Amino acid sequence: MAVKKSTEKAAAKEAVARLEKIARELRTYNMMAIFAASSGHPGGTLSIMDIVAALYFKELRHKAEQPDWPDRDRVFWSAGHKAPALYVALACAGYLPIEECMFLRQLGSPCQGHPHYGDIGGIEISSGSLGQGLGVSVGSALAAKLDGADYRVYCIMGDGEQQEGSVWEAAMSAGHFKLDNLVAIVDCNRLQIDGFTKDVMNVEPLADKYRAFGWQVIEIDGHDMGQILKAFEEARATKGQPTCIVAHTVKGKGVSFMENEAKWHGVPPNAEQFKQAFAELRFPELTDGEAERMLGRVKEYEQCASAKVRATVPKFSRDYWWNVEAAMKAEMEATRRGFGCGLAKAGADPRVVTLHADISGSICITDFEAAAAERAKRVFSVGIAEQNMMSVAAGLAKEGKIPIAGTYGVFASGRCWDQIRTTICYSNLNVKIAGAHGGISVGPDGATHQALEEISLMAILPGMNLVAPADALETEKATLWGILKVEGPVYIRYAREATPVITKAETAFEFGKANVIRYRGRQDHFIDAFETCLAESYVSENEDLSVIACGPMVPEAMRAAYILKEDFGLETRILNVHTVKPLDIQAVARAAETGVILTAEEHQVGGFGNIIAGAVLKHSCGPICFDMIGVADRWGTSGKPWDLMQYFGLTAEHLAKRAKELHEQKR
Amino acid sequence: MAVKKSTEKAAAKEAVARLEKIARELRTYNMMAIFAASSGHPGGTLSIMDIVAALYFKELRHKAEQPDWPDRDRVFWSAGHKAPALYVALACAGYLPIEECMFLRQLGSPCQGHPHYGDIGGIEISSGSLGQGLGVSVGSALAAKLDGADYRVYCIMGDGEQQEGSVWEAAMSAGHFKLDNLVAIVDCNRLQIDGFTKDVMNVEPLADKYRAFGWQVIEIDGHDMGQILKAFEEARATKGQPTCIVAHTVKGKGVSFMENEAKWHGVPPNAEQFKQAFAELRFPELTDGEAERMLGRVKEYEQCASAKVRATVPKFSRDYWWNVEAAMKAEMEATRRGFGCGLAKAGADPRVVTLHADISGSICITDFEAAAAERAKRVFSVGIAEQNMMSVAAGLAKEGKIPIAGTYGVFASGRCWDQIRTTICYSNLNVKIAGAHGGISVGPDGATHQALEEISLMAILPGMNLVAPADALETEKATLWGILKVEGPVYIRYAREATPVITKAETAFEFGKANVIRYRGRQDHFIDAFETCLAESYVSENEDLSVIACGPMVPEAMRAAYILKEDFGLETRILNVHTVKPLDIQAVARAAETGVILTAEEHQVGGFGNIIAGAVLKHSCGPICFDMIGVADRWGTSGKPWDLMQYFGLTAEHLAKRAKELHEQKR
Repeated sequence: MAVKKSTEKAAAKEAVARLEKIARELRTYNMMAIFAASSGHPGGTLSIMDIVAALYFKELRHKAEQPDWPDRDRVFWSAGHKAPALYVALACAGYLPIEECMFLRQLGSPCQGHPHYGDIGGIEISSGSLGQGLGVSVGSALAAKLDGADYRVYCIMGDGEQQEGSVWEAAMSAGHFKLDNLVAIVDCNRLQIDGFTKDVMNVEPLADKYRAFGWQVIEIDGHDMGQILKAFEEARATKGQPTCIVAHTVKGKGVSFMENEAKWHGVPPNAEQFKQAFAELRFPELTDGEAERMLGRVKEYEQCASAKVRATVPKFSRDYWWNVEAAMKAEMEATRRGFGCGLAKAGADPRVVTLHADISGSICITDFEAAAAERAKRVFSVGIAEQNMMSVAAGLAKEGKIPIAGTYGVFASGRCWDQIRTTICYSNLNVKIAGAHGGISVGPDGATHQALEEISLMAILPGMNLVAPADALETEKATLWGILKVEGPVYIRYAREATPVITKAETAFEFGKANVIRYRGRQDHFIDAFETCLAESYVSENEDLSVIACGPMVPEAMRAAYILKEDFGLETRILNVHTVKPLDIQAVARAAETGVILTAEEHQVGGFGNIIAGAVLKHSCGPICFDMIGVADRWGTSGKPWDLMQYFGLTAEHLAKRAKELHEQKR
Repeated sequence: MAVKKSTEKAAAKEAVARLEKIARELRTYNMMAIFAASSGHPGGTLSIMDIVAALYFKELRHKAEQPDWPDRDRVFWSAGHKAPALYVALACAGYLPIEECMFLRQLGSPCQGHPHYGDIGGIEISSGSLGQGLGVSVGSALAAKLDGADYRVYCIMGDGEQQEGSVWEAAMSAGHFKLDNLVAIVDCNRLQIDGFTKDVMNVEPLADKYRAFGWQVIEIDGHDMGQILKAFEEARATKGQPTCIVAHTVKGKGVSFMENEAKWHGVPPNAEQFKQAFAELRFPELTDGEAERMLGRVKEYEQCASAKVRATVPKFSRDYWWNVEAAMKAEMEATRRGFGCGLAKAGADPRVVTLHADISGSICITDFEAAAAERAKRVFSVGIAEQNMMSVAAGLAKEGKIPIAGTYGVFASGRCWDQIRTTICYSNLNVKIAGAHGGISVGPDGATHQALEEISLMAILPGMNLVAPADALETEKATLWGILKVEGPVYIRYAREATPVITKAETAFEFGKANVIRYRGRQDHFIDAFETCLAESYVSENEDLSVIACGPMVPEAMRAAYILKEDFGLETRILNVHTVKPLDIQAVARAAETGVILTAEEHQVGGFGNIIAGAVLKHSCGPICFDMIGVADRWGTSGKPWDLMQYFGLTAEHLAKRAKELHEQKR
């Protein structure tokens, strides 16, 4: 008996040692992938890795050679930003070559910034927008019950994610349905992007919450392999109730300088930092040569992907790309910077308050309090809870404040649409929504984070004002105007990536009024080659065609006008429709007089273009050759922003080619 | 000392008696208003009424003569369907004449089906979509803290409402911000539309949940005035924490046959039931004559409102309204019935499962299990939790089920948009969304419940399929096709009110293909006066104009064609675009050959019309006179569905008038 027990003990010890070794390998590969991508989330991938090792190399019933084996256990990665941890686990388990993981976040790679269902066997669902995986897990677990299948369902979440109300809807339903085939794992690393979870929006006492929602709760040290395995065992033995494993972990675990530091949530290491991290993490079997070889292939892949996409861009008499020569020189600045500047200025009005939903720094909403210390009390962090952010903003607005609620555009428009509609717009409350990272310019993060539908979601709301400014300077003006001069809801769409500055301080800007931009001939600087005025004061010059654009497509439209003139002698009227709602109908309708209209949007095609088409058709009668350029009703993808512009056919070259074709059709 | 105490006791007793008397009055007026409206929510207004009496006639600091007094205490009615209770309380407190309350849910009345901010002083926020008020309350309470104001904030919620995740986002933030100026009141009447809350989606133990979210919790008998007052007092004395009053109540309290019956959630009493309810509730001061007089004025108001709106409808040589004469005779059937029929048939496939979000009966999704008892196990009630409904549906779909998730269109499209986008569409999962009560046809419920934006929200999503069938029969076909023949997400938009049946069993229907409908001359029955075929097999007859419509606007377009021919001799090509996505581009573009296109949608104008405009402009080049008919970028309102069709200018008469004008512009 004693012998058996000690044998068992030795076996268990061995199992733990094996898993700890695997976890170490996974951490190394994970760090290599993030370094190679120069983008990604070290903190939360390192904190979850021991649990991942235990799951994929011990707890789960699964087959790499048959990823869709019906009897496999399911793992739903609700916290999609932990994707690299998933990829390296799948790779080491035999689902894909580990080399593939190094192409993380590259254009064309199956290892998207956030997991995409179908791209790799073993990805059970697309994720990246937090708080959705537990509900999916409930659905999968219900299906098992309905079919009498005995697979088990696991859901990986973060602790910041617990701020999402959808988690509690799902938790309530799991308890209600008594899903004992379901295990939720909360990676409590105590940090989220904006800082300590307890400060951003306290989720504790988390165990009490899950218990009150009908769950068994097991609290463990998420880095103690023995405790992890025991928790899974206990969960398996539990009947009539789902189990939540609250795993206390260390964010950045295993890399000394990353541990317990919020800033390592979503920032990749630079070369020097990687060297140190690699030294701390690496396992003996991985030779320097092997690591170098794997990383070396990434550059090659990247260049090849860029070249491939560049080859699809239409060619002209010479290369007109940004900054290739003096005449194409443009200052580059992200429109988010303009938002920050505008907000910082508007903040002088004491009614202005801001709301943070965790991702505040990158969207420049923090420029508000950075401008003056006293403003700190006018900042409210609501955590990753977009619905509540909008409702709280509504409450603040009705008490006379001017709240600015900001987050990524996908979440700012779509996660809380009903709140924007019913609570904000229907009450006509003075709430300003900062819809950051509009378009594809959030690049490597991929489809889940690329906001390509907000124009449709916002423009259809009565009473909503919607601006999509063309550059950083215009964004600053629009922000100031939208906050201080417009009474009522305003949605400001702006982007992450630096784009050409094509307006000046003195360039006309009026909310609700479009601008006409005309190419006047080559100059030393790109911006000086153009003339801009309010559309209402513009006198037709019988141009050959019009390009109607908004947002960062305006600079592309300008470059297209440049190309069309220089290569084909065609004159283009560019209409910069920075205010999409209310629309400058007169300016849009007048563009029909050129006989050719091409619309340009960094958005699902038609969101903007159809609005223009409607206005043109309603208010003009002549024959018009018309087309729209935009993302062609397809999902975004990971890649470098400018590569993506080419990939989705959104460059000036694409515009110029299509405009030329339309002009040829003109009667 | 003893004398003082007994005096105090007597005063307290008197206060209680006074409030109980007021509560009785409020219940009486409330029942009269709901009876007068022939629509509304008796159950939950009766259960909350003692608390309402205590709030508005004792606890609150407020002034009827100055509703926006900055120092007033705020009450946010998160459960907007309790509106009549709010209105009668405000009336009895002097905010508006009690007679006004009897015009509840009538066109033009400030007493909308759900409260609209600004319509009556004392309405602090628009509500009706559940789960948003607590967040607004948090915002208001934060503003008070920021300004050093000492007003207090109250939020009234239902227990079913606790299923909404947004409630828990708000609850978490209130605890986090330690808002001791905030009191949440949960009217725990244990019932919701679909039955007992514990069965629909158990929210218990509710007190434990709030405690785990950082609240003080006081549990009381919500009909014991002494306990109510004491709870408010206790809340006022509490520092550093918000207070949740969990009030155990009886749904339908005070009317014997309504008590504890789920069916009285949202159904008005008929004349006989009202008589009994009135007898049980009435207070001595209200004479029969007075009650009759008040109710008598409603008919008059109603007729006057109808007449007023009818006067705005364009006139022709004779009255072409539905069923005014034999030739205009049409069978009326709600498209929701068609959905139910289609679903009942599709349910024979064992993969089909359905999800209920509380309002299942009225949207006909229950026809599924009504058709066969064995299907009960394939029905999942998730409660009022639309986000989770979509995630759970996604989980079921990925395990091979065909889930149909249904609720009102506003909530089905907009409350869970991010889940539909990221979890369902991006993963291309086979989820079917039943978007009920599309358009204005949910009538008296008002703007919050009138889905007028779903086309924009759904059509912009890559991979989404969107159908808006024209009548009940077509809805049945579309439902069957969408569930069984389309692989991938489908959104089916259908309506509540009965609308003309204008197709037959043998009428062509192909998903993604539009139909042409042509008026062929007066017949005994309306439907027989038309010929319908697939647009692709239609040969142009050089018609004078085209009307492109979807959903219940198709019958109106047909009546418009009738009018145009009979009154002006104009031939109309009607295009029934039942499938909005994927769009039958060819059919739409071909309509341009008629030179005049008018689009028609029971939706915010442009949601459909701009899509058509885009297709027309892109794919045809000739001059076109074009316009769109729809709700003119404004909010819905309470009223009878057919009155609202007139009010928003959506009738055949409006179409015919505009089409005639466009035709006159045709060159």
